[in-house]
Parts: sequence; structure tokens; C-alpha cells
Amino acid sequence: MYEGAVQDLIDELGRLPGVGPKSAQRIAFHLLSADPTDVRRLVDALIEVKARVRFCDICGNVTQEDQCRICRDPRRSATVICVVEEPKDVVAVERTREFRGRYHVLGGAINPIAGVGPDDLRIKELLTRLASGEVTEVILATDPNVEGEATSTYLARMLVPLGLTVSRLASGLPVGGDLEYADEVTLGRAFEGRRRINA
Amino acid sequence: MYEGAVQDLIDELGRLPGVGPKSAQRIAFHLLSADPTDVRRLVDALIEVKARVRFCDICGNVTQEDQCRICRDPRRSATVICVVEEPKDVVAVERTREFRGRYHVLGGAINPIAGVGPDDLRIKELLTRLASGEVTEVILATDPNVEGEATSTYLARMLVPLGLTVSRLASGLPVGGDLEYADEVTLGRAFEGRRRINA
Repeated sequence: MYEGAVQDLIDELGRLPGVGPKSAQRIAFHLLSADPTDVRRLVDALIEVKARVRFCDICGNVTQEDQCRICRDPRRSATVICVVEEPKDVVAVERTREFRGRYHVLGGAINPIAGVGPDDLRIKELLTRLASGEVTEVILATDPNVEGEATSTYLARMLVPLGLTVSRLASGLPVGGDLEYADEVTLGRAFEGRRRINA
Repeated sequence: MYEGAVQDLIDELGRLPGVGPKSAQRIAFHLLSADPTDVRRLVDALIEVKARVRFCDICGNVTQEDQCRICRDPRRSATVICVVEEPKDVVAVERTREFRGRYHVLGGAINPIAGVGPDDLRIKELLTRLASGEVTEVILATDPNVEGEATSTYLARMLVPLGLTVSRLASGLPVGGDLEYADEVTLGRAFEGRRRINA
């Protein structure tokens, strides 16, 4: 409906998750009349993220160094690992202030319909970390939905025989939802009430 | 909560209209794991819009030339002008296929609370266009809300004494809303049923 560049921008914005055609149009016109320095800041932020952000060598969290802030922090316990699906889940758990160990970010959950199997997740890297013997406890904090439960079940079957204390976040999280949307209190309670899995 | 570049991007995205903190985070992580060429396309679209898109010398609509597509089109009647607030309203009216004249984009509506007065809108440019004598009819298609009504009332008082046929879009549009959200049928009916203003 619009000429060249405006329509191109609306199309590109419309491809973003949660941005429909009307929102894309609204954002495009906002940017069109916005101060050029504001748009430049957005452009720079996009370029910087792609250029500088990478994934932590150890845990798979996002970072601008070889290792993330948490893996570099000597005050964090190296004996407990909390396994999550995505970097945003690390932030959600950090907000509860309930956990002082390290993380392992899988990069997703087992989802046969979307063609995501165990080999597509950072499970091999997790086993390598556990091989050193320093870790004694693993907390499975995948999303409380079908894919997250399947992933935790899969990991528990693999980790319990290794003699580790393996737990899953307690119910209390609304089922069928996303971990990142849980409020701090609910997520904190789920941490406290985590239940041990005995194979 | 995040390191450098990721947080910067979330902050910048969160400044866009209709994008809350959770959506900004979701979009940022989508872009983080997206193909670099997809992000490059978005970056290019942003840069192109700011570099190439400007406002039509005649009507104030968005364009990449000196004059917009509609003002350049000799098949469009030069005797009727439809006055709208924003370029997106031009697109909304075009979708009805009810109107074959030209447009005039005011760039907003009179809104004393936001400090927008008649002098901040492209009203002087409208009067210049009308001075040539070619235009015989003006359709006031501002938003059906308080600011849009105030703007149309202001314009009608100015234009009716010039001997022009001045009309306002018919009721049928839901009051208190935005013109751009009207469906084609409703907006088409409003065009058909527009009522003449007699000073």
C-alpha cells in the first residue's frame, strides 16, 4: 500500500514476533517522524547485538566475553547447576534471588513436532561439565509445558544414574505457560519446593 | 539484567510504540538467534526509510519523490481534496476505493493539551492549494474523536466562507476511535453519507 522504503520497513517489522500488520505500520510511522538520532541508536543496537553478543563457552548464556558474567563470578557455587531452556530464563531465575549456583542453557526444549531432538540441544556440553565431578546437584528448570517436561524427564533419566542429586522445579508454576512469565514469588516458591527425582 | 548490547537493544525496542518490556525482550532474543541477513534487512530498511522517505511537496503524504504517487497521477480528480491527519489515513481511505480525488495530510490534529495548534498543521499549505481556484470540494476526513472533530470544525469555519463545498465524513464511524482502524465497508459508507456543512 505504501511506496518503496516505507512498505519495506513495515514488512520487516511485521516479521518480528508479536508484531502484527497494524503494529508494524504504527512503529514504522513512529520511526519515520522520529528524531534521526533515535533511529540511529536503534540501528546501532541491532548491529552491536549481532556483532558483539555470543554464547558463553561454558553455559551457553548470552555474553560479550568468552564466558558469561555468572560463569566468571567466583562467588557462585560450582557444585549446583540450574538447567534452563533460554538465556531469558536465566534472567527470570536470577530475579528470584533464590539461586547462587551456575546455569546451563540448553538452547530450547525437545519438540518432535518442530523437529528439535536431544542432539539439537546443548546436552553434550552439560555432560562434559558434569564429567569433572565438581557438580553434585542439577536443578531442572525447563518450562512447565509439554516440551519442557519431556526435556526434564529425558535429562533426569540420564543424570540420576550418574549419582547426582537431580530435582525439578516444584509445581506452583502455572502449567502450559512460559517460565519467563512467572512472577518472582511463584518462581521463588517453585525453587524452594523443588522435588528430587529418584530415577 | 542483561550484559551490554543485549540490554541496549531491549531498551531501544522498548521505546517503540506498543512494545512493552516483555515484547522487547522477546524481539531482542528473536533477533539474537535470527539469521544475520534477516537482521541486516531490518537495519537496511530502517536506514533507507530515514534516508529516502520524505513528505510530498503538495499534499504532505509520504513519498520517495518530490511529489507522491497520488499527486503525480493525472487520472485523479484535482477538484476534490480529502483532508486527513496522517499518511496512514490516506492508505485507509484508498482501501475503500470510494474516492478518486487528491489528499491533503495535515500531519496531526488540533490538540491544545499536547500543545498542537492550527499553526503546527499543514493548514497554510492547504489554503495555498485552494487559492488556485481549481478545487471545488473539500472532504474533511479527520479522526472521529475530540481532536479530529475540533480540527474539522476549525477548517470548516475557514473554508465554507470561501464558497467551497465542504463535507465531513458521515457518522457510522465508531466515535472515540482512530480512522485507520475502521474497516473498509464502514469507512466506505461514511464516505457515501458525508454531510455538507453550511457554515
